[in-house]
Amino acid sequence: MNHVMVRYTLGRIMCVVALLMAPSLIIALIYNEGWQGVWPFLLSIAITGVFGYLLCFKRPAKTDFYTREGFVIVALSWFLLSFFGSLPFIFSGTILNPINAFFESASGFTTTGSSVITDIESVSHSVLWWRSFTHLIGGMGVLVFVLAIMPKIDSDDIYTMRAEMPGPIFGKVRAKLGSSARVLYIIYLSMTAVLVILLALGGMPIFDSFLHAFGAAGTGGFGIKSNSILYYNSAYIDYVLGTAMILFGVNFNLYYALLFRSVRDIFKSEELKWYFGIIAAAFILICMDVSRAYDSIPHMIRDVYFTVSSVITTTGYTTANFDIWPVFSKVILLLLMFTGAMAGSTGGGMKISRIAIYFKFTFQEIRRNVSPNRRLPVTFEGKPLSANLIHQTSFYLTTYIIFFWILVVIMALSSLNFETAFSAVLATFNNIGPGLDTVGPAGNYEGLNNLSKLALSIGMIMGRLELFPVLVLFSPRTWRRISSRIHSSDRLK
Amino acid sequence: MNHVMVRYTLGRIMCVVALLMAPSLIIALIYNEGWQGVWPFLLSIAITGVFGYLLCFKRPAKTDFYTREGFVIVALSWFLLSFFGSLPFIFSGTILNPINAFFESASGFTTTGSSVITDIESVSHSVLWWRSFTHLIGGMGVLVFVLAIMPKIDSDDIYTMRAEMPGPIFGKVRAKLGSSARVLYIIYLSMTAVLVILLALGGMPIFDSFLHAFGAAGTGGFGIKSNSILYYNSAYIDYVLGTAMILFGVNFNLYYALLFRSVRDIFKSEELKWYFGIIAAAFILICMDVSRAYDSIPHMIRDVYFTVSSVITTTGYTTANFDIWPVFSKVILLLLMFTGAMAGSTGGGMKISRIAIYFKFTFQEIRRNVSPNRRLPVTFEGKPLSANLIHQTSFYLTTYIIFFWILVVIMALSSLNFETAFSAVLATFNNIGPGLDTVGPAGNYEGLNNLSKLALSIGMIMGRLELFPVLVLFSPRTWRRISSRIHSSDRLK
Repeated sequence: MNHVMVRYTLGRIMCVVALLMAPSLIIALIYNEGWQGVWPFLLSIAITGVFGYLLCFKRPAKTDFYTREGFVIVALSWFLLSFFGSLPFIFSGTILNPINAFFESASGFTTTGSSVITDIESVSHSVLWWRSFTHLIGGMGVLVFVLAIMPKIDSDDIYTMRAEMPGPIFGKVRAKLGSSARVLYIIYLSMTAVLVILLALGGMPIFDSFLHAFGAAGTGGFGIKSNSILYYNSAYIDYVLGTAMILFGVNFNLYYALLFRSVRDIFKSEELKWYFGIIAAAFILICMDVSRAYDSIPHMIRDVYFTVSSVITTTGYTTANFDIWPVFSKVILLLLMFTGAMAGSTGGGMKISRIAIYFKFTFQEIRRNVSPNRRLPVTFEGKPLSANLIHQTSFYLTTYIIFFWILVVIMALSSLNFETAFSAVLATFNNIGPGLDTVGPAGNYEGLNNLSKLALSIGMIMGRLELFPVLVLFSPRTWRRISSRIHSSDRLK
Repeated sequence: MNHVMVRYTLGRIMCVVALLMAPSLIIALIYNEGWQGVWPFLLSIAITGVFGYLLCFKRPAKTDFYTREGFVIVALSWFLLSFFGSLPFIFSGTILNPINAFFESASGFTTTGSSVITDIESVSHSVLWWRSFTHLIGGMGVLVFVLAIMPKIDSDDIYTMRAEMPGPIFGKVRAKLGSSARVLYIIYLSMTAVLVILLALGGMPIFDSFLHAFGAAGTGGFGIKSNSILYYNSAYIDYVLGTAMILFGVNFNLYYALLFRSVRDIFKSEELKWYFGIIAAAFILICMDVSRAYDSIPHMIRDVYFTVSSVITTTGYTTANFDIWPVFSKVILLLLMFTGAMAGSTGGGMKISRIAIYFKFTFQEIRRNVSPNRRLPVTFEGKPLSANLIHQTSFYLTTYIIFFWILVVIMALSSLNFETAFSAVLATFNNIGPGLDTVGPAGNYEGLNNLSKLALSIGMIMGRLELFPVLVLFSPRTWRRISSRIHSSDRLK
């Protein structure tokens, strides 16, 4: 373990985070929030910046780092990020309990969108901006961002990339990481900018347009009104935002391919077909189920479209209270929550590609059991389902299930009912946002005790980083090795 | 596909089932139920016997059969069994709707114990006997039974054995199937007989002792009182029955080893350690959680011991209404429902050995990810976790999840709430019995619509046979092959 390199990289990330807090200062000035609005950010920037500068003051001699270092850096950086990102909430007095502030900050960076703020409409513009801005930052992975804009560390950055880009990777981005990440960022920010404009054109205030675009881009879903998007009550906004969410749930490598290769490459993507297939199927099934509850067909189509889009991309914006929909619709939405968006998008959940692999694997094996003597090659994205891929995705599934239930057991220690415990874990572990009952769209996470909120915060980060990095971080073996290496390098002197 | 052999074997099974209905006739005579009690069984025996005789009238020329034939025979036999087993319910007027009767019969043979009978205490003795007797028959697998008592069909019976004996097989029973199955049956029936005596000694009426022993032996759990075992209100009965359920949840190969090999062999069983470890952990955790709700510690220990034993073995007898226990305890019980008993026992669920494999696999992979260069051989039952074993258990997990949710979606079409839909599938797919809410210990399955009951019946059979045989049965490929073979054999004439 190259611990000097870990320290150095974390320092640089913290410096960038300090810089990213600056726009909130400007917002505070624009909205005349005065000293009250400015000092929380000044202090946060100072603390984060000094901390970062101290860590990266000395350039390391050896700059190589490998998988384990990548995992440790990523996991640690998300915890540090959530910690320093919580400072503006605390200093501004928006959230007084530090655990609550950590939860809100982790929820933002992991693009979950679960909130502990009970009176959102009284929060200042600068804090609201920072809160939603964390979605934008968290969306594509902070570290990829840092690597993209910084003088390159000449080594194999792909490991960090792997750890932060969700989903099993099939088509590797061809170009070198530094430049390709920069392209991905340009695509991401351009799409966000277009969305801001489209929302503003629909009559949404420009400040709100920015914040909702951040939430949609990161598939986060922090609302800034107590009734989320329903507040604007506009079919135009629902359709624009609904479509935007679906587009941000697409694998960004496909946009890359669209720019630099041919359109045909995109239609070859099997995951994209599954993604749109699942969206279409869910949309039709739910429409059939809820049709009796709606007087107006256009209104129903609008609500179902928005809800399906918001749930499958794990964004979490709401226009309809789907908690009162019939059971069948709720089960379909529940399945979409597990499914999540495409790999390589900003969305959470299990990811469409894994779901597709599980299905293909299962039906391949069933066929093989029925006809043992026939070889039936099954492919995904044009490549055969290798034993190794099956092994990896199976590992992911068992790990997911085990940690999911560990979190449910922890939550059950203090929950009032099973529905709250289960849906809170579901909503945070998959980075969705609202759960059911106490933590449902109407309620929020403020009422949970500190142990639950801490467990859910860790769950959000685990879910966002797809488990491994956090497991590596918490593994005693990782730290045993670091200390033994420090010890041995001491001896070498 | 040797379809002649399939037909012949099914015929013999049906003849045996006809014979197994005979004891109910005797019960009807003992309890002076008159013609009303006798004729339903006479008619059922006649129909089943004639059907069976017609199928096995002609001995097949070729007696070899392989995996696929084994799966098809097993799956078909359980459907036929459930159908013919439902006749006494219909003829006696106990259950009028044929779908309900099929559900009750499938629930009995699969040792689930879910019931559609609303007024159990008015049912005649002969029908109650038949209902609980199906648990005893279903417990160890009808076909194994048939193979054990019948003149041997000289071929590779192990495939059928595999399909009916739940759980991944580690230590194969050494002796030849015919004789070893006979030994397993003697152990099983002896244990049941001992239990009958012990229950009767505790003051339970002898008829009730028989029926409850059948339910415990098969880990079925059909109650014959509206408040199940609480009716007897005896600490002795609770402890005897609780312990008996745990013992029937042990892999029967261990009892075989106990008889013919050494005691040390048993202590070597890793699965047994997991089984008792999980029981002990669940017992302690739940006791800590519910202690405030109980005035008397002995009473609490008795209730928790019985409930844990009943739930982990998927029996489903109740003495305490655990539906009102705190959330934490309910989550632990929920996990036990998924876990189930040991492989090779009469219990349902995922099976302890699979759970152990998932855990060992996951933590092996986590360690491997942390230290990629180290080889860490992980073993279960003294054998390394082979790639093939991982592959098979992963396949089981994905298949389980997919069909579990398909059933939930079907149930959601007509359920009043999610809890009912989910818990009904959980309780039947894992062969437990009572679910929550509408289908909870206080309610029953009678109120569900026919589609739901049919789906749950198929789910029970899938769960009991561990998915594969039913999948093979429903695979179009299986039938395409049968018809093509019939066609080609026709041509050969």
